[in-house]
Amino acid sequence: MAKTSVWRSIANALTAEIAAGHYRPGDKLPTEAELASRFGVNRHTVRRALQDMQEQGLTHARRGAGVFVLAEPTDYPIGKRVRFHQNLEAAGRMPAKRILTLQTRPCDKEEAGALQIAAGTPVHVYEGLSLADNIAIAIFRSVFSAERFPGLLGDLDHMKSVTRALAAAGVKDYTRASTRLTAKLATATQALHLNVAEGAPILRTVGINVDPDGCPVEYGHTWFVGDRITLVVEG
Amino acid sequence: MAKTSVWRSIANALTAEIAAGHYRPGDKLPTEAELASRFGVNRHTVRRALQDMQEQGLTHARRGAGVFVLAEPTDYPIGKRVRFHQNLEAAGRMPAKRILTLQTRPCDKEEAGALQIAAGTPVHVYEGLSLADNIAIAIFRSVFSAERFPGLLGDLDHMKSVTRALAAAGVKDYTRASTRLTAKLATATQALHLNVAEGAPILRTVGINVDPDGCPVEYGHTWFVGDRITLVVEG
Repeated sequence: MAKTSVWRSIANALTAEIAAGHYRPGDKLPTEAELASRFGVNRHTVRRALQDMQEQGLTHARRGAGVFVLAEPTDYPIGKRVRFHQNLEAAGRMPAKRILTLQTRPCDKEEAGALQIAAGTPVHVYEGLSLADNIAIAIFRSVFSAERFPGLLGDLDHMKSVTRALAAAGVKDYTRASTRLTAKLATATQALHLNVAEGAPILRTVGINVDPDGCPVEYGHTWFVGDRITLVVEG
Repeated sequence: MAKTSVWRSIANALTAEIAAGHYRPGDKLPTEAELASRFGVNRHTVRRALQDMQEQGLTHARRGAGVFVLAEPTDYPIGKRVRFHQNLEAAGRMPAKRILTLQTRPCDKEEAGALQIAAGTPVHVYEGLSLADNIAIAIFRSVFSAERFPGLLGDLDHMKSVTRALAAAGVKDYTRASTRLTAKLATATQALHLNVAEGAPILRTVGINVDPDGCPVEYGHTWFVGDRITLVVEG
């Protein structure tokens, strides 16, 4: 069990002060020199702490202007209907998606079970980044039956919306059948995409969405940045 | 972003093989000598990998007998009714609780808001460990109004069950109003209690339970070991 380093304990102290509201979104943090004097360390150590907080999505540095507090973690409801754009707009954030890959390949056993199709049947795989106010909040991978939805890849490519692409394929509504949640550490690849440190906390959800007949249409994994998102399950 | 070390990549490879079912719960892993030869490393490196897997709750070593695969992560439903004992028994696990602290103190602002009581009003605080088959799966902290439930601490002490202690206080039923989930890294203290490494992935839930009149009775935080629990939200 590692000993907490000095820079990390400074980052923790400042993070706690942001959480307690001493510094609010948009506020400027004290300068490196002020923080170095307050914590009795050199500026290099302060810089390491500030860099870590920026990687965690808590602050951002504006060149020549200083370090500013970013907004609080966004609430993201897990309701019957999972609608990325609606969810984020309701939270006052500007939603966007960035496509990482669109491909068609044979499904694996797990995907076959989730989508209730035969193992090896072709599936469309849509991988991308979800952004809120231009900051990555999650990586997702959604898998769809290529036999049921032959034209889906093209629609996803230009619509960038699962809801609209499925509607174009005749699925006017779909709902969440179940979601499984656990905590993971960011892998090196995820860390690069999400702009967090390798080993940062990740909230992983695995869900199946079904059409009004109860037939699975989407099997999705999402890896949310723990520090940027709070999932909310209503009772 | 750290480079993955050799021992960690061995741990990852063995973990993936357990996940894929090559080794099942109760199976004995190959010996240190066999693993060292397979991965082309010395036994010290293998030992580090096995130690890490044990800290993650994946394996346990029996002295003189070898290293054995532990059970899969337990599914833990977040339903309308949150009942620790029932949930774990349904998953085939033997539930137990260990009390860490029982105390009465003034509530803070956040607790006052959640329980709809005045700031500074006394609350009972119940902190403990949740275990499944004698392995810690979570730390919890539950807070209750001391004015509404004057005798609750004593009941919690000998009943070790929130459901039964609240029933004794006249609350025959309670349901989950909302649950907020995020991913965190284990702090040094949590790591000690949960027998994981500092920085291990933790799934944190914050929830409010209400009585049949909709009045909050319990404000609870739970820190689940990510590798030992999957939370399941039904649609």
